Parts: sequence; structure tokens; C-alpha cells
Amino acid sequence: MPMTGPRYPDLIARLPATVPFVGPEVQERMRGAPFRARLGANESVFGPSPKAIEAMRAEAAEAWKYPDSKSQDLMQALSAQLGVGMENIIVGEGIDGLLGNLVRLLVAPGDPVVTSDGAYPTFNYHVAGFGGVLHKVPFKDDHEEPEALMATAREVGAKIVYLSNPDNPMGSWHPGERIEAALDALPDCTLLVLDEAYIEFAPDGTAPRIDADDPRVIRFRTFSKAHGLAGARVGYGIAAPDLIQSFDKVRNHFGMSRVSQAGALAALNDPGWLADVVARTAQARERIAQIARENGLTPLPSATNFVTVDCGRDAGFARAVLEALADEGVFVRMPFAAPGNRAIRIGAGTPADLDILADALPRALDAARG
Amino acid sequence: MPMTGPRYPDLIARLPATVPFVGPEVQERMRGAPFRARLGANESVFGPSPKAIEAMRAEAAEAWKYPDSKSQDLMQALSAQLGVGMENIIVGEGIDGLLGNLVRLLVAPGDPVVTSDGAYPTFNYHVAGFGGVLHKVPFKDDHEEPEALMATAREVGAKIVYLSNPDNPMGSWHPGERIEAALDALPDCTLLVLDEAYIEFAPDGTAPRIDADDPRVIRFRTFSKAHGLAGARVGYGIAAPDLIQSFDKVRNHFGMSRVSQAGALAALNDPGWLADVVARTAQARERIAQIARENGLTPLPSATNFVTVDCGRDAGFARAVLEALADEGVFVRMPFAAPGNRAIRIGAGTPADLDILADALPRALDAARG
Repeated sequence: MPMTGPRYPDLIARLPATVPFVGPEVQERMRGAPFRARLGANESVFGPSPKAIEAMRAEAAEAWKYPDSKSQDLMQALSAQLGVGMENIIVGEGIDGLLGNLVRLLVAPGDPVVTSDGAYPTFNYHVAGFGGVLHKVPFKDDHEEPEALMATAREVGAKIVYLSNPDNPMGSWHPGERIEAALDALPDCTLLVLDEAYIEFAPDGTAPRIDADDPRVIRFRTFSKAHGLAGARVGYGIAAPDLIQSFDKVRNHFGMSRVSQAGALAALNDPGWLADVVARTAQARERIAQIARENGLTPLPSATNFVTVDCGRDAGFARAVLEALADEGVFVRMPFAAPGNRAIRIGAGTPADLDILADALPRALDAARG
Repeated sequence: MPMTGPRYPDLIARLPATVPFVGPEVQERMRGAPFRARLGANESVFGPSPKAIEAMRAEAAEAWKYPDSKSQDLMQALSAQLGVGMENIIVGEGIDGLLGNLVRLLVAPGDPVVTSDGAYPTFNYHVAGFGGVLHKVPFKDDHEEPEALMATAREVGAKIVYLSNPDNPMGSWHPGERIEAALDALPDCTLLVLDEAYIEFAPDGTAPRIDADDPRVIRFRTFSKAHGLAGARVGYGIAAPDLIQSFDKVRNHFGMSRVSQAGALAALNDPGWLADVVARTAQARERIAQIARENGLTPLPSATNFVTVDCGRDAGFARAVLEALADEGVFVRMPFAAPGNRAIRIGAGTPADLDILADALPRALDAARG
């Protein structure tokens, strides 16, 4: 057999084979046992709407058909609910998939891109993958700082500036007005990527008022969080028609699961379930905060489906707590960058999940201290 | 509102917003009525295994969890069934998604790529999308011509040469030995993409014997055709470990639907259903051939789940027949390039589907002639 293999372009040859996150199933295989409480991936343990489950079950028998390349039914429902035109919406394989397409559309090798240090690593993965140069702005008081992001974007001439509101992994948020004000400082020809994956959990007024036709912004939302459909891979973007249409240059047109399209549509049409999930998530956040305080830790305010808990020491200690929790069968994650990495990030669990957490955390802290 | 929008790199600015295929749902919306027989997308009308449907239904309630980023259970089952190592397999969002990743891994702007004129347009879409330069080799006697593809690959110094066996859209095939022989003529550092989407329908011996560790080849297979899961978006590649691992540089790691992973695994574990589908597909091909002959047309031999039917005149006539069939509610497609575009491509339907075809075709031919 010949030994020659394919020739990779320089950009690809230099890229590491990596993964933005080590998934819980991978960790379970490494530890040789399933987790007892799955609280690390910001999933909705309350599950999707029963109507979404029923819609997916019904569509399973139709899975021999390719999906509708335009996700028309879902697009129409989104258009009606959001009050924006269908020409302002792109549906894709989760925000992850859409971020990949967006970076491909805008970032050529060497192009500058701005984000916060410790913000969503999958965005960074895509930027690196297309040869972009990342400029990272520190969090300030555990918040992404819109004004500093804009200033850096101006300084480096960024193609894209990424901002999540509410943010992951700290759970913090800004009122919409602050985003609107920062937008005035966005440099010409820089696109603001506003990641609103957690917006359904946030207080009223967190979403800025931005015209869907505004060419300076694309906002992303998802069915993975409040709608409980992370495994279905459905996200969407809202932006000006020119940018939306550009996705048709590069996207995998028939890439959506047909079953997922049906599930997302049914989820969107069940606002009662959504409201219930949001309420149960708020209760779970309270309980996590209480458990944290009972153990001498400091829960940070959260407008998401997780609570980031300051462990009160350095990153090494937080890492030790995380690992001791994993030994107890409790899957959590932690912020990647300082100063957030003094904390662990605990997802809103069911009452049973949080009983396990309450039981395990004292022992995990002992182990981490010992 | 400001008028400035994002700055696109030259490559992107020059790309058309396009779609490799106009999907049947899009066509149904354009014509204002559903098709009576859906025979144009090479789907399996016989559906997925009932066990796959059941597995997807069960997994729907678990759709709140992100998918396993490694598709481990499916990978293990594929590894066992194919007799190749897990390090030789990559699972992705259909062959379409994997082709996109592969082209991204190998093709820099200006790089030459070779395919057959009229072969899979989604591959061409990805090559254009990454700035590759396509060189097209004509079909010969309604077959892709491996020797000519290799010769052109050598002449232009191709990064990739694409070959499907059996092929779409003609349905023709070569014995595996001919692919093996052609591989000897593959230039150094050119990768052969062997698309075996239809291999389950083909006679024994159609799949060439290629060592999974051979660095010169990646072969793609899918759950979209014989397994009846086109809407689930699950395909896989078999190649040397170095190339397989490279996908981890660029792929959407959490891009698979969790429900689809479960469906594909169950489908793989139901060889009886697969055999039944293959048998019913062969019967349908016979019936299509008979209907074609009864109408004075010439069915071409097929090792796929469709029959390409020579309409006996030029591309304009074939197009007229296709459009007249659509007016009758029968969705078929036709090859894009000469000389295949003298034909229409009819998918293996259920007996009820083919009754509709048999009824509609004489009128469609009259309309096309008139």
C-alpha cells in the first residue's frame, strides 16, 4: 500500500484536531460509569414539550424523506411569533452550525475577530478553523463588557464582534438598552453577533430592540435551551435579508433533520410548556443558590438555566471541586478563563438531581480541600 | 438605520446564493399542490426499519440531551459490521455534510478537483464554495469513466477526484475490480472520493476491495438510501486514521441529531429489513422498466434505487416529459448534463406509486410531444 496521503492546505495542516467541549457521554466512558446528575451541558432537564415529543414520534415514520431544504413551516411560525419577515430568518443545525457558516461567510485568513476571554469556545473554534485572528476582551465584574468589545473591535478593525446576552458561562446579563447603546459604537463594517441562546430565561427588557433589517447585527436563538431540544440541533438567526441570503451560498441545504424540524415547530407552538420550564428553571436556580450558600460558596446572579458558583479560591480549587463532583457522579463544568474559572457552573436540575447535588457537594468540597 | 453591512471576502462575494437541488416541498409550494408520487429524490419509499422508527420514537423524549459528539454506539456497530477499526470511520450529517468537511480539509482556493460532468452537484457546490476549480470528465456510455478521471486528475494535479459507484444520476456501475485497477493510476497526493451511497442495491462485487488504512481513498456511505433515513441525515466515511482524525479539526462536533443516531443504530441492526427493501427496490426497478418500455422509452440498467429512462430525444424533450409528469403530480428528476439529460430519473416507488406513474406517463408523453 502506498504511504502517500492527501495534501492539506497550510491553514488546515496547522489546525489542531480538537473539540470545544468534552461531552458527557465521552466523560462517562472515560470514568466507566454514567453520571447520576447531568448538570454540566446547560441542557433543559425538564425536557421538550410533550407536543414536541409527539410531533417527533409522528415524523419518525416519515424519516425516509429528505427534509424541506427551507424549513418552511418552522420559518413561517418563527416569522409570525417574532414579527419579522421570513427573509430575515435562517434556520440551521443549532447555533453551533450557524456560527460555523457565519464565520465562513465573513472571515478570511488573518481577519480580526473580537470576543470575550472565556466566552463561547465553539465560536472561537470556528474562527480558528477559518484562519481568523481572535482578540479577547476580559470579562468585567463577571460580565461581558459591550463597550470594551466595541472599542477593541474598532481598534483591530474586526470583521465580527461576538457578544452573548445573557452570557455563558457566567450567567450574567445586561439590560437591552445597554446593548442598544453599545451598538452605536460598533465600527462600520463590523458585524455584531448577538448570541441570545438563553434569552427566554432572562428578565423582560434583556433583549435589545434591534430592527431585523439592521445590517450591523445578527442575533442567534435556539431550541436547545428553554425548548429542551439540544439533541435535535435546531437554531436560528435573525438578520438583514442580504446576510440571511448569503447563508444559501455555503450552508448544507438539506442538513436539517426532518424529525427535528417537526419537533421544533411543535415546541414553538406550545408557549405554556415554555413558560412552565422557565418557572421550574427559576426554582432550580434558587435551590442551587441555596445549596451553594449552605456550603459556604457564592452563587452568582443568573438569567440562564444554570448558576455559576464562586468557589472562593483559585482555578485549581474550582477544578478540584468539579472533579470531586464528577467522582460523585455529578456532571458540571467550569469557566475556561480567569477570573471566571474560580467558579463551577451548575445546570438547573430536577428536584431529584439537586437532591443528589446537595448530598454530594459537602463531600466534594471536603475532597477538594483535603 | 445605517446602511453598511458586513464585508465579505472575495471568494464569498463571488459565490452565487444557490441550492444544488430544488427540493420536492419547495416544488409543491410552487405548484400549489402536493405530489401524488414522490419519485424524484432517490429516497426509499419503503421507509426505515420499524425498529429504527421505534428507536427514534423512544429517543424523542431524550432529545433534551446534546448528542454524543463521537456517535460512539453507532461507530462501534459500524466498525463491527464493516470489519474496520473505529479510527477508520467518521460519522456525519449525511454524505452531503461530510463532503463539505472533506472539501474544506483539502481544497484551497484555486486547487484543481476532478469529477464527472453530470455527477453529484452537491459535491460541486462544496468545491465551488471553497474556491476549488472543477474539471469535468464526460460520462462514457452512460457510465462514469474511472480511467479518464484518473488521467485528468494526473493532468491537472487534482487534490480530489470524485467517483460514485453505483453512480447517480445514471444508475450505472462498474465491477469493483475496475475501481481497484483505476486506483493504481491515481496520482500521488490525489485523494479518491468513492461515493458508495447506493452500494447496498448493487450486485455483489461492485464494492472494490480497498484497505481502510489506504491513504489514497475515502469511501462514503449513507443511511439515506437503502436504510430509508434520508430525513435523519446520517452518513459515514471510511478512510485512513490520519484523514479521519482531520475531520475533528473542522466538523460541527455536536452536529448530529441524537434521535438520528438512535435511528441509524437500530437500522444497522436490522439486516432483514435492509434485505427486504433491496428486494422490493429490485421489483420496483423491474416495474419501472416495464412501464418505460410499454411507453416506447428505454430504461437503462440500474444498480440503485432509481431507473434512468432514456426518453429517446433531446434534453428539451426530457424536460418536457418531466414537467408534464409534475403536472400529473408525479415528482421525478433528470440528469443535469449531456448526454444523460436525454433521460428522466424515476425512483423505485411502492406499487401504488408506480400505478400512478403507469397511469400518468402516457398522458405526460402526449403532452411533451404536443
